[in-house]
Amino acid sequence: MSDLRVLGVDIGGTKLAAALVEPGGRVESYERTETPAGLDAEGLWRTLEMLVGKVTGDAPIAGVGVGCGGPMEWPSAEVSPLNIPSWRGFPLRARLRELFPGLPVRVHNDAVCMAVGEHWRGAGRGVDNVLGMVVSTGVGGGLILGGRLVDGTSGNAGHIGHVVVDPNGPPCECGGRGCLEAIARGPGLVRWAQRQGWRPEAQVSGVELAEDARRGHPIATAALRRAGEALGVAIASATHLCDLDVVAVGGGLSQAGPLLFDPLEETFRAHARLEFARRVRVVPAALGQTAGLIGAAALIFAADRYWNIT
Amino acid sequence: MSDLRVLGVDIGGTKLAAALVEPGGRVESYERTETPAGLDAEGLWRTLEMLVGKVTGDAPIAGVGVGCGGPMEWPSAEVSPLNIPSWRGFPLRARLRELFPGLPVRVHNDAVCMAVGEHWRGAGRGVDNVLGMVVSTGVGGGLILGGRLVDGTSGNAGHIGHVVVDPNGPPCECGGRGCLEAIARGPGLVRWAQRQGWRPEAQVSGVELAEDARRGHPIATAALRRAGEALGVAIASATHLCDLDVVAVGGGLSQAGPLLFDPLEETFRAHARLEFARRVRVVPAALGQTAGLIGAAALIFAADRYWNIT
Repeated sequence: MSDLRVLGVDIGGTKLAAALVEPGGRVESYERTETPAGLDAEGLWRTLEMLVGKVTGDAPIAGVGVGCGGPMEWPSAEVSPLNIPSWRGFPLRARLRELFPGLPVRVHNDAVCMAVGEHWRGAGRGVDNVLGMVVSTGVGGGLILGGRLVDGTSGNAGHIGHVVVDPNGPPCECGGRGCLEAIARGPGLVRWAQRQGWRPEAQVSGVELAEDARRGHPIATAALRRAGEALGVAIASATHLCDLDVVAVGGGLSQAGPLLFDPLEETFRAHARLEFARRVRVVPAALGQTAGLIGAAALIFAADRYWNIT
Repeated sequence: MSDLRVLGVDIGGTKLAAALVEPGGRVESYERTETPAGLDAEGLWRTLEMLVGKVTGDAPIAGVGVGCGGPMEWPSAEVSPLNIPSWRGFPLRARLRELFPGLPVRVHNDAVCMAVGEHWRGAGRGVDNVLGMVVSTGVGGGLILGGRLVDGTSGNAGHIGHVVVDPNGPPCECGGRGCLEAIARGPGLVRWAQRQGWRPEAQVSGVELAEDARRGHPIATAALRRAGEALGVAIASATHLCDLDVVAVGGGLSQAGPLLFDPLEETFRAHARLEFARRVRVVPAALGQTAGLIGAAALIFAADRYWNIT
């Protein structure tokens, strides 16, 4: 593959991002744009096409790796991202193959790509068993075991957001109850805090909640504690089931720092008592906003570990 | 490896069992004995030595596979089985290598071997992503993903018994709280039922509890329902995290049949709502008491899938 770069793409409900990624994982020519609302499927595709055109220019590349919000048919990557209503069964991989004929095009869930990025070049580098998590508008993740990405039966392994942390907890958008995501996702926290009297009239997000918590607002602080405790329970369960080395927690809400990580760690340690589980390290993700792009590029650069499709 | 047989051994707190296993998985010359209580480490070793001597006789074998109760240092297999107090750090693998010089000797957790057996020749045959579970005096398991056994960092992957099903639930012997095992293990169920008034004076086990439930005793029935619900929650969590095809549930308590499996299925279906999770089949294990022996033999016969140590 010489030293050609890979086009990495990250497609979410909030932003579209693309960059050239070097074999060592360094990001070049990074471009991003807000995900346009109100466009139809083809309009959104043209926005993406322009963005990747700007990034690649005339540079030769080794392939295209993409992280995209789920769900999707996998590995064919007909995508139906929850937060992009105009794409339903959109043939993302097929369209990218037309745009880049002859090159490998590989698409995976965006949270899976984040986990791959953190294993390849981030907080999980050098160990074999890693859970990477994104805590944001949703709660997602990806699982690396024995040094290789775990896909599961349909490419859906890593759904830590739907590990049950309280069987009698709040209903989840998945139709279940008491999932980690139902409690710890940003909008869930905001709703809970507003019911307790925090800015009940305002249109606010998890970002404002974390800011208020940092300023010492007791309800905002309690909301982050609630999320941290739910995360601690789910991570204990995942650790017992998978015997992990490292859990890397990223996503917008992880920016809250100790207000989230302290109750997380406390609850995790209370539940993870067996010797092997105590050895696990729960750490903030290291790559920030570009983790997904870098992981997407690793689907090409390090296919022996992260792309199991032959 | 021609058609040589493998010596399979299963070491638990209740019984020691050994057999010759054919390459196709059929069990021959099966022998078992109660695990002697009150012997010291060497006395117990001599009991095991006699048992395997009786099974192997003068027949040439291809190797030795062993399932043993945990915990253990792995893969060196210095074992300290919870229910065999006289073995603490007992060098099981080293001693077996002295007994069978030149032959491969491989030891893994007994519940892991059960899961391997069910994947190799039982209820999980032919699919790639399987959780095998043993519900008995404890609750254990093993995980096969992408067609290969998952060991985790220290050989402890598969500890489904310590997935948290109720963060405020009863304390667990591991030191945590609300683990599946704390609720669904036989002695836990018996204790719960006795507190509700079921045979409060008697020395009884999960077997009697299941028998009384079959006769329609309401408290015994409620205890099995309680276990089934806890199992359903834990299996939903494992399914979301690992994107499984099949969950095979064995062990003494699984003999209770629909009294356990009906509430299990109901609770599982209530929590596993995402499309990929609905496809999972939860089934009784198929190999019965010899699953562990057969799986132990597979550590030799199918090392490419079940023995990751090089």
